[in-house]
Amino acid sequence: MYIENIKSPSDLKGLDIKALKIVADETRAAVLNRVSKHGGHVGPNLGFVEATVALHYVFNAPEDKFVFDVSHQCYPHKVLTGRASGFLGNVDDMNAISGYSSPAESPVYDNFEVGHTSTSVSLATGLQKARDVKGTKENIIAIIGDGSLSGGEAFEGLNEASELGTGIIIVVNDNEMSIAENHGGIYKNLRALRESKGECKHNWFKAWGFEYKYLEEGNDVEKLIEIFKSVKDTDKPTVVHIHTEKGHGFQPAVDNKEGWHWGMPFNLADGSRPATPAFDSYEQLYSDWMLREMKKDPTLIAVTAGTPAAAGFTPAKRKEAGSQHIDMGIAEEQAVAMASGMAKGGLRPVWTVYSTFIQRTYDQIAQDLCINSNPAVINVAWGGTGTMNDITHICLFDIPMLCSIPGLIYLAPTNCEEYFAMLKWAILQDKKPIAIRIPSNGVIHTSDKVDEVYSYESKYKVTHKGSKVAVIAAGSFYQKGENVVKILAEKGIDATLINPRYLNEVDATTLDSLKANHKLVVTLEDGCKDGGFGERVASYFSASDMKVLVGGVKKDLYDRFDVHQLLSDNRLLDEQIVEDILEII
Amino acid sequence: MYIENIKSPSDLKGLDIKALKIVADETRAAVLNRVSKHGGHVGPNLGFVEATVALHYVFNAPEDKFVFDVSHQCYPHKVLTGRASGFLGNVDDMNAISGYSSPAESPVYDNFEVGHTSTSVSLATGLQKARDVKGTKENIIAIIGDGSLSGGEAFEGLNEASELGTGIIIVVNDNEMSIAENHGGIYKNLRALRESKGECKHNWFKAWGFEYKYLEEGNDVEKLIEIFKSVKDTDKPTVVHIHTEKGHGFQPAVDNKEGWHWGMPFNLADGSRPATPAFDSYEQLYSDWMLREMKKDPTLIAVTAGTPAAAGFTPAKRKEAGSQHIDMGIAEEQAVAMASGMAKGGLRPVWTVYSTFIQRTYDQIAQDLCINSNPAVINVAWGGTGTMNDITHICLFDIPMLCSIPGLIYLAPTNCEEYFAMLKWAILQDKKPIAIRIPSNGVIHTSDKVDEVYSYESKYKVTHKGSKVAVIAAGSFYQKGENVVKILAEKGIDATLINPRYLNEVDATTLDSLKANHKLVVTLEDGCKDGGFGERVASYFSASDMKVLVGGVKKDLYDRFDVHQLLSDNRLLDEQIVEDILEII
Repeated sequence: MYIENIKSPSDLKGLDIKALKIVADETRAAVLNRVSKHGGHVGPNLGFVEATVALHYVFNAPEDKFVFDVSHQCYPHKVLTGRASGFLGNVDDMNAISGYSSPAESPVYDNFEVGHTSTSVSLATGLQKARDVKGTKENIIAIIGDGSLSGGEAFEGLNEASELGTGIIIVVNDNEMSIAENHGGIYKNLRALRESKGECKHNWFKAWGFEYKYLEEGNDVEKLIEIFKSVKDTDKPTVVHIHTEKGHGFQPAVDNKEGWHWGMPFNLADGSRPATPAFDSYEQLYSDWMLREMKKDPTLIAVTAGTPAAAGFTPAKRKEAGSQHIDMGIAEEQAVAMASGMAKGGLRPVWTVYSTFIQRTYDQIAQDLCINSNPAVINVAWGGTGTMNDITHICLFDIPMLCSIPGLIYLAPTNCEEYFAMLKWAILQDKKPIAIRIPSNGVIHTSDKVDEVYSYESKYKVTHKGSKVAVIAAGSFYQKGENVVKILAEKGIDATLINPRYLNEVDATTLDSLKANHKLVVTLEDGCKDGGFGERVASYFSASDMKVLVGGVKKDLYDRFDVHQLLSDNRLLDEQIVEDILEII
Repeated sequence: MYIENIKSPSDLKGLDIKALKIVADETRAAVLNRVSKHGGHVGPNLGFVEATVALHYVFNAPEDKFVFDVSHQCYPHKVLTGRASGFLGNVDDMNAISGYSSPAESPVYDNFEVGHTSTSVSLATGLQKARDVKGTKENIIAIIGDGSLSGGEAFEGLNEASELGTGIIIVVNDNEMSIAENHGGIYKNLRALRESKGECKHNWFKAWGFEYKYLEEGNDVEKLIEIFKSVKDTDKPTVVHIHTEKGHGFQPAVDNKEGWHWGMPFNLADGSRPATPAFDSYEQLYSDWMLREMKKDPTLIAVTAGTPAAAGFTPAKRKEAGSQHIDMGIAEEQAVAMASGMAKGGLRPVWTVYSTFIQRTYDQIAQDLCINSNPAVINVAWGGTGTMNDITHICLFDIPMLCSIPGLIYLAPTNCEEYFAMLKWAILQDKKPIAIRIPSNGVIHTSDKVDEVYSYESKYKVTHKGSKVAVIAAGSFYQKGENVVKILAEKGIDATLINPRYLNEVDATTLDSLKANHKLVVTLEDGCKDGGFGERVASYFSASDMKVLVGGVKKDLYDRFDVHQLLSDNRLLDEQIVEDILEII
């Protein structure tokens, strides 16, 4: 076996083509070993195995700098840069290696922590400029998938790379897919380039001033070496467009590219996955609900920016929705602005987005949407502590962000019935943009009656009237609030429980009503507390005698945290909250 | 005079070419009348007069929908859509009409509130989709300047407009300028298209699937009418690229396009402006300081995203800085990501950005910069109540935004010496990204010694030790804090005064030290208080006996506010703050 002896890319240099092909096969097997046991990004990594071997053979990392985009194709690079244990070892070894480009893990070979899309060219232009100022000669190589090319930052980066005019190599890894299928005018050009073997009349990259090379055989180590050698040490901005196969070398991933973009562990022999017990998910419930409503209302439009799975829109459901489902490609800014335009034009758009990606659209939400008061709906998925935990994908910051944007209402339903009631109201009203934080603690049902109509003013709902202590428990921490109130009851304290429902503004009337017979207000929110919901309640009471205990996660750079530990560190376990309450009162 | 009788675009329909040319001349005179008396955007509006006359002659607003980008070219449209009084009337009439596209002002003819760049195509795609769903036939026309084309959102919009595949007309108003000169690879293609009269080999728009038409004579009403007629009612995504002259018809603005992009009132006869008393500005001080430092340190790089004036980098100073000044074009995301890359590569980049535009980069600051801990510096200009006041340009939200991003330090200097000390420290340190909020209340000097070295932990500075009341006055509200303490002293209260310096985290040590002999902490910040600095102090003390009065501006959609009124409404006048303090203690 070669790869066990490859401690760094320099160990590739003496190998011949035959050996390099074996290295590629072993690297693919290592990637498959990891993803089958550990889960992770499957298809994009499999398609980039040969290119990675060729890149590391031709270029000299770490002097030459690689910058990966979104990191979905960086596993082979990890295998060849001293981290093969994360692919060949046991599950603990695998856990020690992240799924993303990470200088924290490999300061020598990984230049940036990367997990959001469309950043590689922009980041690489910084290295390009630094090299030019310092007068050194290293190669700067940005790697970007065709799917990532649809994000605005990628265009801005390409624009600047050409402007700088010096050597940079941009490897466009074109596997004809984003996470789902590609959407956008640029893909017409990529297709024309592929079909003409790079020779079509209007070449976008050449139009922008790049040198351009095309390789049809993007999974052929020998040809890849040849093309990379031909651009090595270039002093011009250069695009190398390689046509690869997503999932290459593992037939299930080739046959179903979207399904095998990312996945949980599976059986390597046939790609089967262990049967999981059937359970409801908001993805499934939401997409089913939308499909039913779409049939009644042709103006209802489901919007995604390259992540239809966040809303449960499988290929079959997208087909059923037809033109009432719209995918921008990975272009969140466009999603918000277009949703605003659609709402202005009389449609009822609902954009579903993972919490971690909503921060790509602060300006569009503030400017394109909120100052225009157009009634688009934003579904924020997976916000909270219990979802994604890589440093690049933390879902704790949507509350501080969205609640600092004037003109936006941010609702936090506490269960399934309340979520759909809020969603229906948000879609039918025509005055304001409304964001809704989908509960992230599983699908919990209630038999209580939920309101059908919501006001534009914040109105909290008092679900249990007690005294002395009031627990205001928002969204997916509402059940935690119930637990805390229950434990307090066992200790003889009949605490008030409140479902605030609105995160964007405090409900002064309800808060004032607490002053008569409460000493302490406790806020609980499933997210970052700095700048969040609870601090606004604290601020509301800060000049009064009311004490406030703000419960949330402290702002920090978290990476691959254990949820229980995170909650414990932030004194958010039920018993800790009760302890802190008892100490204050 | 024609334009006094043009109440709506339909009044243009019966005119012949000769009359339309007179309308154009009168419209230009009206625009010049306004900007000479009221100030505003000069060059871009002058260059788009003829195109606007032609657009309104050919198309039928309001059925046909216009979407303007950044609004720098919407004055002629206002003149022809019932708002000529804002251009011909007295200053009150002019004040009644905003400088931006505004449905609040004209719900019939303006489709969106627009003030940030690169949004028109994205917004228009929403109207395009709405039309397609409703099955109506109106024309959707997005207008975008060549300068605005460098922003990522514009690319995302173009990508989607092509994907939709139905009729949309994108008028590229190419005046060969951004606010300053253009930067980026795309301008190589625009130039090639101009030089070849639209016939060059690699046409970016055609590559992306657009129909494309070019007009060299972009200030010729007759030819503009002809080209717009040729695309009217198209069922295809279509780019109409018109070559216009920025400042057309007013020689001073033609001769100095950057200087006349926007300006204060001037003498219409010769373009001269009344001499203003010489005064220091941070723009001038900063650029001078940077130029001196750059000579000592070739790794120091001044960065701008299309607004070099925000940093005082005049054309002469940019020339002096050479390759140590870098302009991305209007591409804030690229500015942050590239700054992160430059810092990673060993350079010392300082990006200067107006407060209102920093919200275009939440994700890049969080992901590309902060999780990578690269030591780039961000200079936030004009943050506060006393700067821009159009609804699209409010500068109150940078504190809530930046303070919710983990890994970022946000410093608030209170005077000139402290600003430059912090800047120097931020540039020389190599561990963290640092943002600095340039004071926005004029250049105030101190004879007090300011610290040269700052820590990464928040450390407030107690500038006067008193008791009972502590005033924590941040950044450009520090002098307000001084005033409050002075008034309190007159009333016999010896209040503590604190310069917090750090906005991103509270200084627990200093806050704890207040508990012994203070009853009330007052926070003052020149920005939105919801999610801001003071609420974090309130939250810190919320479970204790300390009372906190949080001083800042309530989150809301403000438009063209009067500063004194805004402060008064938010109880931020010195006397009001003292009143509120006295009431609490």
